[in-house]
Amino acid sequence: MKVIHTADWHLGKILNGHSFLGEQELILQQFVEDMKREQPDLVVIAGDIYDTSYPNKNIVTLMEKTIMALNLEMGIPIIMINGNHDSKKRLSYGAQWFLQNGLYIRTELETFFEPIQFENVNFYTLPFFTIPEVKAYFDKDITTYEEALKALIEELRPQLDPAKKNILIGHFTVYGAPKSDSERELTIGTIESVSPDTLMDFDLVLLGHIHHPFTLSSEKIYYSGSIFQYSFSEAGQVKGYRVFDLNQDKISQKFIPLNAERELEVVEGAYSDIINGRFKRKHDYNYFHFKLDALSQITDPMHKLKQVYPNTLSLSPKLLESKEDIQSERHIKKMNPVEIIDTFYEKMTKETLTDFQKHTLIQILNHTEEI
Amino acid sequence: MKVIHTADWHLGKILNGHSFLGEQELILQQFVEDMKREQPDLVVIAGDIYDTSYPNKNIVTLMEKTIMALNLEMGIPIIMINGNHDSKKRLSYGAQWFLQNGLYIRTELETFFEPIQFENVNFYTLPFFTIPEVKAYFDKDITTYEEALKALIEELRPQLDPAKKNILIGHFTVYGAPKSDSERELTIGTIESVSPDTLMDFDLVLLGHIHHPFTLSSEKIYYSGSIFQYSFSEAGQVKGYRVFDLNQDKISQKFIPLNAERELEVVEGAYSDIINGRFKRKHDYNYFHFKLDALSQITDPMHKLKQVYPNTLSLSPKLLESKEDIQSERHIKKMNPVEIIDTFYEKMTKETLTDFQKHTLIQILNHTEEI
Repeated sequence: MKVIHTADWHLGKILNGHSFLGEQELILQQFVEDMKREQPDLVVIAGDIYDTSYPNKNIVTLMEKTIMALNLEMGIPIIMINGNHDSKKRLSYGAQWFLQNGLYIRTELETFFEPIQFENVNFYTLPFFTIPEVKAYFDKDITTYEEALKALIEELRPQLDPAKKNILIGHFTVYGAPKSDSERELTIGTIESVSPDTLMDFDLVLLGHIHHPFTLSSEKIYYSGSIFQYSFSEAGQVKGYRVFDLNQDKISQKFIPLNAERELEVVEGAYSDIINGRFKRKHDYNYFHFKLDALSQITDPMHKLKQVYPNTLSLSPKLLESKEDIQSERHIKKMNPVEIIDTFYEKMTKETLTDFQKHTLIQILNHTEEI
Repeated sequence: MKVIHTADWHLGKILNGHSFLGEQELILQQFVEDMKREQPDLVVIAGDIYDTSYPNKNIVTLMEKTIMALNLEMGIPIIMINGNHDSKKRLSYGAQWFLQNGLYIRTELETFFEPIQFENVNFYTLPFFTIPEVKAYFDKDITTYEEALKALIEELRPQLDPAKKNILIGHFTVYGAPKSDSERELTIGTIESVSPDTLMDFDLVLLGHIHHPFTLSSEKIYYSGSIFQYSFSEAGQVKGYRVFDLNQDKISQKFIPLNAERELEVVEGAYSDIINGRFKRKHDYNYFHFKLDALSQITDPMHKLKQVYPNTLSLSPKLLESKEDIQSERHIKKMNPVEIIDTFYEKMTKETLTDFQKHTLIQILNHTEEI
């Protein structure tokens, strides 16, 4: 049995006002073409299909078109769960009709106990859940995500068939998986990740939520990663999907990249170099986050950068984020106000305050303290 | 063949801030129960399933639940078209999967030429369309709704099979169908209704858009009407659906009422009578539009009325809408400004302006004219 594992499509994602819908359409076309070649027995989409719980009609149309190509045109069964970004209700609309065609959309906790069977494999679906949902389900006190997951698996354990391959599909964080800027916090104020040991009952765990596809080094637990770089903390990350071969005793897998036309790039340098094209890049149409120094003399630098690099999405002063700065931030509490301002001024302008400026500053500060 | 004709569900309708979703759920439960008794071969829903192109998840859930009961649980085929209130895309999401279960959702003009066949009957679906859509379709000049419909039917005519019953499902206005406040204008600035003669190619025409079920006296053209009274201009109107028997040579039909727990009522009278319950009504929980006189002495009458009649949705002065007023409005152009204000003051307060008031008024008016 050949299983494709994908997740975190985040259709409709907007970063700094820019919609990635065009990119997403190209990537999904590539994915659909790949599936024609791969001819899988099943596609698993492990949550965060949409980026928003209220997707507009263009977003819904892209989702429907993609799923239609896979499920109706190619006849590939699909198992899909909601992630923390998806609206359960919007994702599951029509699900009772879809499942007659082998398109399983699972959004309810209870469905965890109703495996979907393919040949000798049982797929257990665990849609994104919150701790209060699991508390309510078991009517007992649960305070961490790991406790919640343990309670669910404990409940499931008696029905697990050791003669079959048991595969978990879920959307949560496993220890050791660092988060990117675009992964929304699952819960607030509680421990939100689970130990890999929690999942030892399963032969294979196919996860969504973490956008980096090589975030874990486990032979049983995998994130497919997102299909596109959705934040600058994901710049440089490879994106794609996994192909699992479940025929042998030992499960084998490979990662297949999806190649976006444009990528996210973080570029550090001097404004004058950047605006004159003196820096390494794939092409001018990439999505750039420029971290530039010597910005203070430039009027409306963002506007000027966008004229040359139209997909510039972010601009920040370079020095403020250097390691040196993080170091100096630790010392900032030991500095007096004039020293703080002097240091900041020097970093931004590469000049120190003049005596007159310092004197004026002291006067202002004294006046402020009096108030 | 037994066909049920319904339309204008307007799920999610809000009138003066009040959502009818609760009423709609009860009515649709009644409809579903009726269908268990009727055991029809087909249910036709002739547009305006939703009231809004962006229905929230509770609205979508009610729609899905109802259609699931009919189509999946009872196995009844359904033909549905969009009305002017529906979003084509939102209504048709999943349509390719649904039709495998005999749930036909038609939202595109082109589908008019692809009849849905049941036994000896061809159903031609004409989703709500605009004149520009038809202009673009034929690439010729079309200025009225009737011209558009004629062009469509002319194009269709060669494929109409006289050996079969040809039934049109549409969402538009036929001459002689008066509109209620809750039927949004189909088009602006063009003649929007069509002559019944335009439809003579069909054996039967099942329409949505007009909310009154007995709006036309035709043996071939029917509006099912809406499932609930959606505006005070529909107060007192019977609501329900039609049952068609297509087995005999002559098509027979009957109208079956759906009985809402609450109705819309327009009540005229004096505030003191109303607040003390001295008026005829079904019960205090109906949706009231009070047209009251002697209101000017009452502080916050709406608030007080809602305490006694919680579903009061509208309050207006009685006299302003009397026939006498409409009469006087015709004369208003002949009156000078002081006369207009004097008349208005008298109607609202039942007193005339004092000489002092008149004098002040003239001064103000003169001053305004000078400016």
